[in-house]
Amino acid sequence: MANLPKALADAAAEVETVLDAVLSVEGAPEKLIYDAMRYTTLGGGKRLRPFLVMESARLFGVPKASALRTGAALELIHCYSLVHDDLPAMDDDDLRRGKPTVHKQFDEATAILAGDGLLTLAFEVLADPATHPDAEIRATLVLALAKAAGVRGMVGGQMIDLDAETKTLNLAEITQLQQLKTGALIGFGCEAGAILGRAAAAERKALRAYADVLGLAFQIADDLLDVEGSVEETGKAVGKDANAGKATFVSLLGIQGARQKAAALVDQAVSHLSGFDDRADLLRLTARFVVDRRN
Amino acid sequence: MANLPKALADAAAEVETVLDAVLSVEGAPEKLIYDAMRYTTLGGGKRLRPFLVMESARLFGVPKASALRTGAALELIHCYSLVHDDLPAMDDDDLRRGKPTVHKQFDEATAILAGDGLLTLAFEVLADPATHPDAEIRATLVLALAKAAGVRGMVGGQMIDLDAETKTLNLAEITQLQQLKTGALIGFGCEAGAILGRAAAAERKALRAYADVLGLAFQIADDLLDVEGSVEETGKAVGKDANAGKATFVSLLGIQGARQKAAALVDQAVSHLSGFDDRADLLRLTARFVVDRRN
Repeated sequence: MANLPKALADAAAEVETVLDAVLSVEGAPEKLIYDAMRYTTLGGGKRLRPFLVMESARLFGVPKASALRTGAALELIHCYSLVHDDLPAMDDDDLRRGKPTVHKQFDEATAILAGDGLLTLAFEVLADPATHPDAEIRATLVLALAKAAGVRGMVGGQMIDLDAETKTLNLAEITQLQQLKTGALIGFGCEAGAILGRAAAAERKALRAYADVLGLAFQIADDLLDVEGSVEETGKAVGKDANAGKATFVSLLGIQGARQKAAALVDQAVSHLSGFDDRADLLRLTARFVVDRRN
Repeated sequence: MANLPKALADAAAEVETVLDAVLSVEGAPEKLIYDAMRYTTLGGGKRLRPFLVMESARLFGVPKASALRTGAALELIHCYSLVHDDLPAMDDDDLRRGKPTVHKQFDEATAILAGDGLLTLAFEVLADPATHPDAEIRATLVLALAKAAGVRGMVGGQMIDLDAETKTLNLAEITQLQQLKTGALIGFGCEAGAILGRAAAAERKALRAYADVLGLAFQIADDLLDVEGSVEETGKAVGKDANAGKATFVSLLGIQGARQKAAALVDQAVSHLSGFDDRADLLRLTARFVVDRRN
């Protein structure tokens, strides 16, 4: 029987080692920016996105080192997005993963540059032959991650999210926003395993479909946590969306409706994995986990 | 006889077409961020960095389309760095290329996201098969650009530059700062041609040596323009470094000393091109141009 909490913890520990290595300050011209990048990247987070890379890669027998470095690159993108998102001109958050945000701990300029550094490093890690000996795979990973993270993916979603503060989005608009803002990176996480494993198009498509539903379930759970969670559990401010009068899945569907929607999405996500054997069991459990988590 | 002003203008027009295409808003989920990215990227700038890619690529008979896309990717990085550099928390500049900076024309959040979008797009452009059919070359370009733009390159230089506001750097420190902050991207510009052209190691090394000296000459000229230039000529605020009491090549060497140093660097840059035939004439003229320019 697959043990998800243990698998998540083990993967997080392995990813931490890779992140620590790619963020090694040795020989660097400047130490302070490394302090900021390491502060925000190391020692925290569920590492859900790298876990998705590792588990999707495992379906195709990809060597673990390749999956780990790809997962680490994805986590660098995720971490940079949090640093920039927390800036005063953006969401203006003081707390992240239970610690002061980067611009509070250091300063705003350092936070901007540390985010830029993490973003750039992600592509350096992917393009490095250490990630995969086949340049075709490395270039495909870079292209896919750049698309997922860019203006037609995560950054575009963040821009829509900023605009959303001045208008009320409907369910279709909220869904599109979240597919870009959080769904695109989760989608890359699952597709990366298929890219690394030279999977057949149908398998890559199934994983992408799983990821799309998973990402939506993840966001609905996030909205529920913003209403029902505590600062202690989530390590960040709660009740922000409601206080800002922003439309969320919870404001549009109600708490019960959002819970039901999330549960239905879990079943749907699992159904997309029907073509895979028991090696996909952890991915199946992950779908349940993202809606049941408390942080 | 090579005509540098015409060659620069022709290259700039061709790069503009590629930048316009890769920044096409068609089918994008969000328009405002494209407005900001296009505002800051299109219709301005000398396009010196793309020109270096094109001229170094020409030495090895690289198809123009490959050089143009690579140059456009480099220009996207340059443009993103200006947008973030101009932010209130960084250099706090209101004027760039004679226009309001992005955070003045739009707002700060849009400027942060537009910069992130441009940075990410640069890697998307490089990793796209349209840039070069050989994935090995695309991955090598991504790796080289990520290193040049990252914390051991441009971003690291910007961090040192921020720190420099609180301490006085000596000539060796200023030189290192500039090698990172402006030299790294100029270095990539010249090396990119060698990568695209599968040049011999010695040729790549010679181009890199040329670029390193060129970058330094370029920066000394910049420092001279900050003292001697006008807002009308440069399209940005002048006298900022002196007002801020920051050490520059001019404050350390004096105006005459800085001019002499720049002239010596021009000769040195040209000497590194001795192994190339007259196809390198425009690069030779470029060395002279970067110290004689008025903007």
